[in-house]
Amino acid sequence: MNAEIISVGTELLLGQIVNVDAAIIARELSALGINLLYTSVVGDNPDRLEKAIGMATQRSDLLIMTGGLGPTDDDLTKETAARVAGKKLVLHEESLDRIVTYFNRQNVSENQKKQAMLPEGATVFTNNNGTAPGCAFQTANGATIIMLPGPPSELEPMMTESVVPYLKSGEQAIIVSHSVHIFGIGEAMTAQLTSDLMEGANPTVAPYANEGECFLRVTAKAATKAEADALCAPIIEEIKKRIGDSIYSVDVNSLEETVVNLLRESGKRIATAESCTGGLLAKRITDISGSSEVFEMGAVTYANRIKELLLGVPHDVLAEKGAVSEEVARAMAEGIVKKAGADLGVGITGIAGPGGGTEEKPVGLVYIALSDGKNTWVTKRSPIGRTKSREWHRHCAASQALDMVRRYLTDLPIEAQ
Amino acid sequence: MNAEIISVGTELLLGQIVNVDAAIIARELSALGINLLYTSVVGDNPDRLEKAIGMATQRSDLLIMTGGLGPTDDDLTKETAARVAGKKLVLHEESLDRIVTYFNRQNVSENQKKQAMLPEGATVFTNNNGTAPGCAFQTANGATIIMLPGPPSELEPMMTESVVPYLKSGEQAIIVSHSVHIFGIGEAMTAQLTSDLMEGANPTVAPYANEGECFLRVTAKAATKAEADALCAPIIEEIKKRIGDSIYSVDVNSLEETVVNLLRESGKRIATAESCTGGLLAKRITDISGSSEVFEMGAVTYANRIKELLLGVPHDVLAEKGAVSEEVARAMAEGIVKKAGADLGVGITGIAGPGGGTEEKPVGLVYIALSDGKNTWVTKRSPIGRTKSREWHRHCAASQALDMVRRYLTDLPIEAQ
Repeated sequence: MNAEIISVGTELLLGQIVNVDAAIIARELSALGINLLYTSVVGDNPDRLEKAIGMATQRSDLLIMTGGLGPTDDDLTKETAARVAGKKLVLHEESLDRIVTYFNRQNVSENQKKQAMLPEGATVFTNNNGTAPGCAFQTANGATIIMLPGPPSELEPMMTESVVPYLKSGEQAIIVSHSVHIFGIGEAMTAQLTSDLMEGANPTVAPYANEGECFLRVTAKAATKAEADALCAPIIEEIKKRIGDSIYSVDVNSLEETVVNLLRESGKRIATAESCTGGLLAKRITDISGSSEVFEMGAVTYANRIKELLLGVPHDVLAEKGAVSEEVARAMAEGIVKKAGADLGVGITGIAGPGGGTEEKPVGLVYIALSDGKNTWVTKRSPIGRTKSREWHRHCAASQALDMVRRYLTDLPIEAQ
Repeated sequence: MNAEIISVGTELLLGQIVNVDAAIIARELSALGINLLYTSVVGDNPDRLEKAIGMATQRSDLLIMTGGLGPTDDDLTKETAARVAGKKLVLHEESLDRIVTYFNRQNVSENQKKQAMLPEGATVFTNNNGTAPGCAFQTANGATIIMLPGPPSELEPMMTESVVPYLKSGEQAIIVSHSVHIFGIGEAMTAQLTSDLMEGANPTVAPYANEGECFLRVTAKAATKAEADALCAPIIEEIKKRIGDSIYSVDVNSLEETVVNLLRESGKRIATAESCTGGLLAKRITDISGSSEVFEMGAVTYANRIKELLLGVPHDVLAEKGAVSEEVARAMAEGIVKKAGADLGVGITGIAGPGGGTEEKPVGLVYIALSDGKNTWVTKRSPIGRTKSREWHRHCAASQALDMVRRYLTDLPIEAQ
């Protein structure tokens, strides 16, 4: 099945919004094994929109449209798509009831009511996070048009809760994907180590890079989930054999989630002391709901005075070695683990840039220490290759700290980066 | 001038990457007053790509292409665009030299060399952040094709440093934009208060929503920058009159940058004590390069024990009022300002969700306190309307804390939220 996406909205063409919707849909279609051939963005212009819909329904089996379902006169998607498909718009009572309830009023305006007008015979997708329902219907030449609301907070749950099951119901085979997450070796090396696996057709293996990490997606198609899983399993084992302990998870989407899970399982609590990452490590750990069980405290000790006061970093060490040094990272980790009475402590100190670098201590140099109160390990990040942003250095330093914690909790060598 | 964008790359169609490039380009074109009519994504498929380029250069004056300029065989953009335009690819010696220098080797592979092959007669845009240069050239029917590298870290600087000046050199008028940033009143209310201003043609005024904030962009076209600024000035004044002190900046893009600037100007230093935001406030402040001058320390005090130990929050208050209470927020702010010896201290405690809410203390309830050591102010965020994410609650709570600091430093009432 070939598909395309048309996103409707002048705000996308003005660059005020990134087209997140297209990426969400593309990911789901890919997991379903549906080929996405084009995505495009058209403004709130009826002529151009009509032409785009006409062309898409000629050349593709499935057209997914996002945006333009709202109450204002600019919202043209349904009217235009229905016209191209030769369908009338009719009132969908249940959607109207939901809109009335949503606004908690007896009467809603004509404009709001417009949102409950849907092409006749359409399959309706309830919007649990907003007012405009989504829907699916067929054109005269047999193409399927699916229309979804623009806000990602409405589109994403509708996609997973309604659209994926709708699309699956039309498929004979089940598609299953697993992702193998890797930290410490890059996308190019990962691809090189697994290049022959990527030539397979079922399962397929594809590499993806993602903010200093990468992952391999293994996707199989079979009659049942169990059969598809059985096809994936030996490939995942083979990948594990080749990539080794740089794999931090299968199907757990982030280092922070992996680490919070490991901390929970081991009953250990962690504390963080951050300089150059400025709270980012604490933020990432506490992004995970329920992290309060394992996160004891975080300290952002930017000033040297505070490093001494709060963490007990010796004044002499700061003066002799400088704030960005192996010794200070070590003292920060040891200081916070003691201060917080935690099982594990992390200390991070470095130069995130863009200012503050010197020849001896360039932007991107970061020391990361992990202490369990008895032993302390320190790793060093050195800037290599082309200039990276402040955000990049901070993100990768926090990732490396998380990876050290993962390695500690799974009895792997910590300094082998 | 009408423009469109074609982004090339199967990875976009697999949804592994969000099309950030299109948004970056769209924003710049909008600021230049160039109408962007379509954006689309095509995979690494020569036939479909050729058709898409053919259609685009027929119907638009300017086609900007992103991606597919790299060294691999999948990278088809230049070959295909040159074929459609009837141009040969020729070696650009200077780009080859840059690539050789970049790899720090005497010889580069044939594949790497491919990146220096550009359509004959093209204007070349140097890539200061990678290897593949960008370029601009004309088709036989007079359309302009611009090709840019796919990674946003390469595309964004090339866009501002080379493409915008290139496009401006062809324009008679100068376009100037200013953005008026607002926190505390929503996009709908902002639009309502300024609806008549949005009907103007020069300058134009347009509202944008952005993660719990909004801003108005004022754009004018004139022969010189001074004239364009003079057109904008009275409109910006009028907006200030209507929106009042909810405007936190003109042309400073974030609350954190505004606050770091204000702290610097006033010579004051800040410290933060965070519970539910888990380091996000510290992270946002330290996102700003040079924030070390004004950021004294941050504490992420998740556990009650740590709130007592580090911040001196009284045990009785925690037991009686609960960790999420006005009293605890107050004690956290007062505790951190004392502990850090800073001029200002912020305390945040709340329920970010999705778990942990009760009827009395629902998800989204957050208390935020600001102390200057003498006085302390506390504001409260209550969840309203539909369910928001953990991320949303954390972001907005941190924003509100920043806005309180801004209000303090500019002598505005702090609790008037």
